[in-house]
Amino acid sequence: MRRLFDDELNDLDTGFTELGMLVSEAIGKAVTAFVNHDRTVAQAVIDNDHQINDREVSLEKKSFEMIALYQPVTTDLREIVTILKAVSDLERMGDYARSVAQSTIRVKGNKRVAVIEQHISEMGRIVQQMVADVLDAYVKDDDQRARQIALVDARAGDYYQLIYRESIDQMRQDPEVVVGSTDYMAVAQFLKRIGDYVTNICEWIVYLQTGKIVELNPRNTTDTPTDE
Amino acid sequence: MRRLFDDELNDLDTGFTELGMLVSEAIGKAVTAFVNHDRTVAQAVIDNDHQINDREVSLEKKSFEMIALYQPVTTDLREIVTILKAVSDLERMGDYARSVAQSTIRVKGNKRVAVIEQHISEMGRIVQQMVADVLDAYVKDDDQRARQIALVDARAGDYYQLIYRESIDQMRQDPEVVVGSTDYMAVAQFLKRIGDYVTNICEWIVYLQTGKIVELNPRNTTDTPTDE
Repeated sequence: MRRLFDDELNDLDTGFTELGMLVSEAIGKAVTAFVNHDRTVAQAVIDNDHQINDREVSLEKKSFEMIALYQPVTTDLREIVTILKAVSDLERMGDYARSVAQSTIRVKGNKRVAVIEQHISEMGRIVQQMVADVLDAYVKDDDQRARQIALVDARAGDYYQLIYRESIDQMRQDPEVVVGSTDYMAVAQFLKRIGDYVTNICEWIVYLQTGKIVELNPRNTTDTPTDE
Repeated sequence: MRRLFDDELNDLDTGFTELGMLVSEAIGKAVTAFVNHDRTVAQAVIDNDHQINDREVSLEKKSFEMIALYQPVTTDLREIVTILKAVSDLERMGDYARSVAQSTIRVKGNKRVAVIEQHISEMGRIVQQMVADVLDAYVKDDDQRARQIALVDARAGDYYQLIYRESIDQMRQDPEVVVGSTDYMAVAQFLKRIGDYVTNICEWIVYLQTGKIVELNPRNTTDTPTDE
């Protein structure tokens, strides 16, 4: 029974990491497609999103079944509950990657602003690295690293504020960039939200290792800049 | 033991509903404050948000403890797992109420557009009603009602598209409304996200009653309008 449980827990764990890699890939592709104005890649991100959703549901089901069948306690239970909660975070990160891709599809020869696109590209790299790092910290049960990753979220927040201000300035100067600039603001917000979900997963890693529910960035969900 | 379990499950259930009522109240106040330009009420929403976060953490802890201590099966387990997952949805809805309140605080004599504010007010009423309805469906174990509530989310989506287009039009015509209009778009998006989370909770109610994980609005997380 214990052997079987260990095997299934191992499978669940692998499934979680694989879902994370799918999401990380979707985010990377979505940002690259947006910056390169590549609607083909963007469409592929949208088309693949159902795989992420399907895997989330399947991992949720598996978690429920294991809790019901094996009635695990202490660290085993904690590991399953962590996956049960964190798969939703991964799935929502995938949703935001799809939203970035949708913004790319919507662009129809709008006037673009190179400097803002550069900043979006940089912000995208930071966020994608956060996703890669949190998966690695999860695999290595490294709660110290998880705490450090959550701190990087502040940098994503700084980029969000920068892109927001640049977009506002552009829109004030030139009515032709209004539609494009609202997309810049939206994409920056999607990326910021992905960073917030990474922080959530960091909190789950800390919980997994310590049994303590912590809030690593208490104000990490601010959507609107505090000033212009 | 069973008696004790039932009492604790009842407490957990009550705690969930109370959290839902706190969130519903926060959403109502945040939208009213935004439309009335009332920064005092908006600040109160921001100040009270920690109560929502604290209650979420406490309900999560309680859920873990009950699973570990009583090792519940079938419907009991399902009820606890539902609360464990859905408290995060409620907490995030509270975050969006705070984001709406933050938009209200940010406004510093920006030029306002009455017709858009009217539409935000209407959208806010729809979303707040969805929140009230989903709590009622949860208390009454009414999965049919939950399915109906998820359908209302499409109306919130329509309002989002309308407010998005109106904001773009305004910004194109008048650079002075750029900052205010980006707030209109942001607030409409926050409200739309709250509607998405209501749909999530509807899905949990269906799961609770039927044991099936369903997706009621497969495309309910689209953030950017499909056309202008």
